[in-house]
Amino acid sequence: MAFKAYYLSPDGYLHRDLSEKEVREAFQSNQGLLWGDICETTEEDGEFLARNFGFHRLAVEDCVSPLIRPPKIDDFGDHLFMVVHGINHKGESDIVETAEVAIFLGPHFVVSNHNESLYSVDAIVKLVEEDARPMRRGADFLAYTLIDALIDNVLPTIDKMSDVSDQIEEEVIHNPQQSTIEDILKLKRSIMRVHRVMAPQREVLNRLSRREFSIIGEEAGIFYRDVYDHIVRIEDLGQSLRDRADNALATHLSSVANRQNETMRVLSTVATIFLPLALVAGIYGMNFEYMPELGWHWGYFAVLTFVGAAIIAAVSWFWARKWIAWSRRRVARFRPFAVEPEKLVGYVGLVRKWSHL
Amino acid sequence: MAFKAYYLSPDGYLHRDLSEKEVREAFQSNQGLLWGDICETTEEDGEFLARNFGFHRLAVEDCVSPLIRPPKIDDFGDHLFMVVHGINHKGESDIVETAEVAIFLGPHFVVSNHNESLYSVDAIVKLVEEDARPMRRGADFLAYTLIDALIDNVLPTIDKMSDVSDQIEEEVIHNPQQSTIEDILKLKRSIMRVHRVMAPQREVLNRLSRREFSIIGEEAGIFYRDVYDHIVRIEDLGQSLRDRADNALATHLSSVANRQNETMRVLSTVATIFLPLALVAGIYGMNFEYMPELGWHWGYFAVLTFVGAAIIAAVSWFWARKWIAWSRRRVARFRPFAVEPEKLVGYVGLVRKWSHL
Amino acid sequence: MAFKAYYLSPDGYLHRDLSEKEVREAFQSNQGLLWGDICETTEEDGEFLARNFGFHRLAVEDCVSPLIRPPKIDDFGDHLFMVVHGINHKGESDIVETAEVAIFLGPHFVVSNHNESLYSVDAIVKLVEEDARPMRRGADFLAYTLIDALIDNVLPTIDKMSDVSDQIEEEVIHNPQQSTIEDILKLKRSIMRVHRVMAPQREVLNRLSRREFSIIGEEAGIFYRDVYDHIVRIEDLGQSLRDRADNALATHLSSVANRQNETMRVLSTVATIFLPLALVAGIYGMNFEYMPELGWHWGYFAVLTFVGAAIIAAVSWFWARKWIAWSRRRVARFRPFAVEPEKLVGYVGLVRKWSHL
Amino acid sequence: MAFKAYYLSPDGYLHRDLSEKEVREAFQSNQGLLWGDICETTEEDGEFLARNFGFHRLAVEDCVSPLIRPPKIDDFGDHLFMVVHGINHKGESDIVETAEVAIFLGPHFVVSNHNESLYSVDAIVKLVEEDARPMRRGADFLAYTLIDALIDNVLPTIDKMSDVSDQIEEEVIHNPQQSTIEDILKLKRSIMRVHRVMAPQREVLNRLSRREFSIIGEEAGIFYRDVYDHIVRIEDLGQSLRDRADNALATHLSSVANRQNETMRVLSTVATIFLPLALVAGIYGMNFEYMPELGWHWGYFAVLTFVGAAIIAAVSWFWARKWIAWSRRRVARFRPFAVEPEKLVGYVGLVRKWSHL
Amino acid sequence: MAFKAYYLSPDGYLHRDLSEKEVREAFQSNQGLLWGDICETTEEDGEFLARNFGFHRLAVEDCVSPLIRPPKIDDFGDHLFMVVHGINHKGESDIVETAEVAIFLGPHFVVSNHNESLYSVDAIVKLVEEDARPMRRGADFLAYTLIDALIDNVLPTIDKMSDVSDQIEEEVIHNPQQSTIEDILKLKRSIMRVHRVMAPQREVLNRLSRREFSIIGEEAGIFYRDVYDHIVRIEDLGQSLRDRADNALATHLSSVANRQNETMRVLSTVATIFLPLALVAGIYGMNFEYMPELGWHWGYFAVLTFVGAAIIAAVSWFWARKWIAWSRRRVARFRPFAVEPEKLVGYVGLVRKWSHL
Repeated sequence: MAFKAYYLSPDGYLHRDLSEKEVREAFQSNQGLLWGDICETTEEDGEFLARNFGFHRLAVEDCVSPLIRPPKIDDFGDHLFMVVHGINHKGESDIVETAEVAIFLGPHFVVSNHNESLYSVDAIVKLVEEDARPMRRGADFLAYTLIDALIDNVLPTIDKMSDVSDQIEEEVIHNPQQSTIEDILKLKRSIMRVHRVMAPQREVLNRLSRREFSIIGEEAGIFYRDVYDHIVRIEDLGQSLRDRADNALATHLSSVANRQNETMRVLSTVATIFLPLALVAGIYGMNFEYMPELGWHWGYFAVLTFVGAAIIAAVSWFWARKWIAWSRRRVARFRPFAVEPEKLVGYVGLVRKWSHL
Repeated sequence: MAFKAYYLSPDGYLHRDLSEKEVREAFQSNQGLLWGDICETTEEDGEFLARNFGFHRLAVEDCVSPLIRPPKIDDFGDHLFMVVHGINHKGESDIVETAEVAIFLGPHFVVSNHNESLYSVDAIVKLVEEDARPMRRGADFLAYTLIDALIDNVLPTIDKMSDVSDQIEEEVIHNPQQSTIEDILKLKRSIMRVHRVMAPQREVLNRLSRREFSIIGEEAGIFYRDVYDHIVRIEDLGQSLRDRADNALATHLSSVANRQNETMRVLSTVATIFLPLALVAGIYGMNFEYMPELGWHWGYFAVLTFVGAAIIAAVSWFWARKWIAWSRRRVARFRPFAVEPEKLVGYVGLVRKWSHL
Repeated sequence: MAFKAYYLSPDGYLHRDLSEKEVREAFQSNQGLLWGDICETTEEDGEFLARNFGFHRLAVEDCVSPLIRPPKIDDFGDHLFMVVHGINHKGESDIVETAEVAIFLGPHFVVSNHNESLYSVDAIVKLVEEDARPMRRGADFLAYTLIDALIDNVLPTIDKMSDVSDQIEEEVIHNPQQSTIEDILKLKRSIMRVHRVMAPQREVLNRLSRREFSIIGEEAGIFYRDVYDHIVRIEDLGQSLRDRADNALATHLSSVANRQNETMRVLSTVATIFLPLALVAGIYGMNFEYMPELGWHWGYFAVLTFVGAAIIAAVSWFWARKWIAWSRRRVARFRPFAVEPEKLVGYVGLVRKWSHL
Repeated sequence: MAFKAYYLSPDGYLHRDLSEKEVREAFQSNQGLLWGDICETTEEDGEFLARNFGFHRLAVEDCVSPLIRPPKIDDFGDHLFMVVHGINHKGESDIVETAEVAIFLGPHFVVSNHNESLYSVDAIVKLVEEDARPMRRGADFLAYTLIDALIDNVLPTIDKMSDVSDQIEEEVIHNPQQSTIEDILKLKRSIMRVHRVMAPQREVLNRLSRREFSIIGEEAGIFYRDVYDHIVRIEDLGQSLRDRADNALATHLSSVANRQNETMRVLSTVATIFLPLALVAGIYGMNFEYMPELGWHWGYFAVLTFVGAAIIAAVSWFWARKWIAWSRRRVARFRPFAVEPEKLVGYVGLVRKWSHL
Repeated sequence: MAFKAYYLSPDGYLHRDLSEKEVREAFQSNQGLLWGDICETTEEDGEFLARNFGFHRLAVEDCVSPLIRPPKIDDFGDHLFMVVHGINHKGESDIVETAEVAIFLGPHFVVSNHNESLYSVDAIVKLVEEDARPMRRGADFLAYTLIDALIDNVLPTIDKMSDVSDQIEEEVIHNPQQSTIEDILKLKRSIMRVHRVMAPQREVLNRLSRREFSIIGEEAGIFYRDVYDHIVRIEDLGQSLRDRADNALATHLSSVANRQNETMRVLSTVATIFLPLALVAGIYGMNFEYMPELGWHWGYFAVLTFVGAAIIAAVSWFWARKWIAWSRRRVARFRPFAVEPEKLVGYVGLVRKWSHL
């Protein structure tokens, strides 16, 4: 149990590292803003939540369960229970994992749960410890900040996927291999995964931004709408990546078929030229006693000349039918529309994310 | 006819093994909670239901029929008739079957029907016989418990499918065979089957959780909503498995095409090298009387040298064009996102399922 | 014109073989129940309907037209005009045809039209002639009986398709041929045809069962709902068959690709082994005067040994690379979920269909 | 500018070839029925419409524009502006073109525009000139007649497509060629084109038949509903044709793969039999001095016998493995459901189309 | 920062090159029409907008962000914020880029933002500088003019794509190459891109044309509806192009498979003819001492005759089985429906676009 609690009292003072008793008092005061964050939620945490906040058993079970929970929003009258998914981006590392946060949102409290330490939550904790800024505009804003930070990590991930996509497209054209197919399919599956995580979230954020719930104020609604727009954009970029992956796959398969075609042509050409000539040589290698040509003085040279002429004629003919050629590569002509998403990351940073604070 | 009936009288006493007359009296008392469970429903059971409960002919026919009934919910005013599908998980065995339960739900009675003995119903019967716990919170809760137990068995099945999927992916990459395709298609069909059983159920549970029916109380509605969430999760996992199966199929087909390509290259290489050389040997095997080279002292060795040099040159050239190589296997680079569903089963057990009792 | 008319007067007496005048009188009496059935509708029948019943020109034209009419329901205020599709199952024969019935339904009359003699209508005519049972519960019930009988014939057809599907799956695995593909595609097209006939009917029956039309009483609505459930089940089974056909197609294609692969491997193996050895034999068949090996006593045996050793080595190597093998067939491991629809027919009979009468 | 105008005055007299002044007077009289038809609409026609009828600039621009306009309906309060698509069937010729008509419909006027001379409009003009029948039932009926005539031309086109489909299916099975693929794809594209023209029209006709617009009377609404039903039928037939085209494509591809398979088998069989035997002959053609077999009296006959036996054994073995056979063609067994649309055209004629007049 | 501002005062006089102070005054006067256009929006522009117009922070951030924003419309009560996408067509050049404009629309002001200089905006600036025409009909008309100009550039782009499609179809049939596949896939991706940009815009324009927002007057609504119709048409043309690209792909793949088939047939034919004959020659090249045929006077000529006859017989047989032929090309028979979009561009010009001014 890693439980951290902050309480911003109505007079604007930030209390830290609250004990269980202080948490309960802050919760029951019904003023100010209480933020509790549980990392690596355990059974004990479940009991803690049920005991002090009186949350519904099923919601608490959802927090405690190690299973993946689909994004959703449940209205319990005086508070909301949300599950939101995003990306836990581990700095430099190449490992990117999906992450989920469960949030209880009431008029004067926010309780967030997550099974692993999340970079986005850590960043907000840091800001709160500095000067409590993210907590000063109310519970709905604090929840928005948590959700926005989680989802903002998705764009860099899609950017990284876009880089991989570039490399794959390069490889498909210049050096297609069996492992390229596997790369494409892995990429596609990752994109599908992001899509399946984001699609239900679109609905959740739409409901939040429509201010269907009285806990979300009018001002905050506009910010939730902004997160909704981000998800729409993410889905659009994801769709674009999926198209690219499908195209790369089609190009690869056609390229493999093409190479096989070339291989077969080489084989056919070689067999068509040399099998008949080998028959000619075989015939004059027969040991019949009476074979008049064998006695001719220029017979051997006539055969040599015939063989040489036949090879030259056949190669010319195959060349004319374009079965063989020095270089078969023509550069594709059509330039698609530009403005594919690039250099997304640089700008999307902490500056933007909390500029409203 | 295997009919069991339990009656929890308003004073909290549990009556067991009721006779037909006791059942009818309990039903007409309109208080307490009567639970009747019919296993391997026969024509006689149909008459029994019509005689004692006055259920509608068509609903009774639905119970008696050995046909598969799609999930549905019919509102008969004073009671509901539901058909719910799930998995009948037979312990250790590898056999997994779909199962269906038909439930009549009134304010004071629950009558459940199923054509085979079901593990999920047996577990609840056991709990009822212990201390009647599942019946103490009313008819809507008892029905929920039956439905939840049935559907909770689906997750371990999907977990098992996930294991099969792992093996198939392993096999597709390291040892693809014709039977692998059949495994993939069988797996995909099973996933589709679960999807088609679950999809209409989503609608049924949604209607139950929205409390469209007055028989479902507000408290129970939250629990039905929880089952709804389970189905959403099952569909999500199923979709993920379907993607994996599709990818495995694509990988397999591309791998088969690739191997054929390699086979063709070997053939073409061999033919391209040895057919021309065989012609050379054939020419010097001809029996012309006047073939000056045959008399040259080093003629034979010149031919041998030419043959050797030609083989080396051809192999080098094919090597450079990458038509042949020692090992063509490159490890795929891109690491997809983690957190695929794993270790689902351990936690999902009886503990969770009736923790609300 | 094959017109039959029955009139059940309010006193419960059944009049048969009514003349045109009697039909008109019964129709104008606005009590009892009049049933007119027209088989092989002609222009004259159209005039007859317009003259005696005053039906709308367009509806009458629809009846008379030999064209296929999509399932639909038109509300003409005091009566409904419905087009319903089903299967005309010709007993033993292998021929299965789609059939359609157009029904005018008023509070006191039912007029049904069909272009061919239908087994389902004949069965009801027989029941009416016996004791008028299907007519005793009102016009809405008579119309239900006609529709239900027509649609109940679809299930045995799907059962027959399921049998064909079994045979095809067997054939795909053990003896795939080009004609198998054609069988699969024909089956698939038949399934699609049933789907396209059933899908719009679902909507028609849904509207009838919702009692959107005052002519359909509350009691009859439940029965129409039952037909709706049948259609849902038919669609579910059809979807399952479509999946099976798609899988059979994929298995077949992969199996063809696999066999071609094996063929190519045999060819490559043979060429790779014997072409180089033929070169060796060709070289020692050259007629150079000075070839020292030819004079060696054991030269011939050395070559024989080399050839034998090379063949054994190559076969071993190809065996190790699994290019060739005695038996390549591994049995597929994964057992899909059971409970595919089987033995559907036996139970679905006249007993069930009119058990409500 | 080819402008024709007819005015049916309230006393039932038909005025023809109206001048611009007469048109304006008839339009402003607000009684009787004015029909103006513009063929090959020009800029001048646009000015004419704006000047005399006061139609909205954008609607007039839509009429004048040579661009394709999607089917739509705009409500301008006192009149409707509709764009309807159909087929302009040029009698005997094989050329079938899509056609569109723009219609302004007011309570007392109909103004139709089209860019080419249309057979369907010509037929109605002829009927009007005879006895003004199509104009006697009001503006909404005249508009219906125009739309119905345009759309009725689609069915014969689909019938023609169905004939082409029959030929293609025949060819796919008995004589598949590369051009067959192109035929299939062209047919499919035509079907798609009809679908894309008809699909939005379904919505337009649905709105017209629901009498959403007060200009459409109750009586006319039933006739618009009839056109709607036609479109539904057209879509159904089109879907059926699309399925057939897809099946033909799949059959063709599988047939090509099958033939390639047979080709490869012949090649492999020949190579497997003759390459090893050629090695045997090559070995005994070597010139070693000491080859004991060469001196054996029956050596040559032993080799001949071995070669013959080997060929017979190999052919038998390949025959048994079914690699080679005399005839590989088995007739497909499964008979699909009958009643594909055929002989559609005969009946659909002018008789039916204006039988309501 | 490239900021241009125009103010049309209520007395119809056009003020140009307003200073920041004048802009603010014009904005606060709440009469006349103020148009501000920002090109290459920077952070400073953001501050400028926030300072003088008081737009919401998030909308300003959206303007400033270099990221792609999905089309949308946000209602801020007294003004709307829209993002619209189109094509920035660079005259002669082959480069076509997507472009987006963000528009703030109030009753008396329009503020437009774009990251690059746009040809469509420049054209309107020019018209405004001439005689302020686009500004004389109010803010909603000015916004319409901007949006219409942006979207009208899409049609020529689709026309260009259609030309590329023509070339590709030509190439697929007469000279299919690997690069053709890449061209097809690039074209398809471009079409998808246009589709994904246009699809959400359809919704935006639909909302604008339904006059859901009070800022859009009834008169302007009809013009927004016209833009909506354009988008529908663009989507229809795009769908048609997508079908063509899919067909071209299928034709290409089938053509590649066909060529491979022909290659294999040539190879099989050659091998089947010459391998057995080579065996015959090899047999008579053996050095057995006792081979009676070798002594026959006509033996050699008998073998020559046999070889010749065998070659002729084999070629005839393969010819009869249609394995080889001079020309296999048959012209496709079926003529698809005409009226594919062509010559779209000529007419779509400035004339039409602002003809309402």
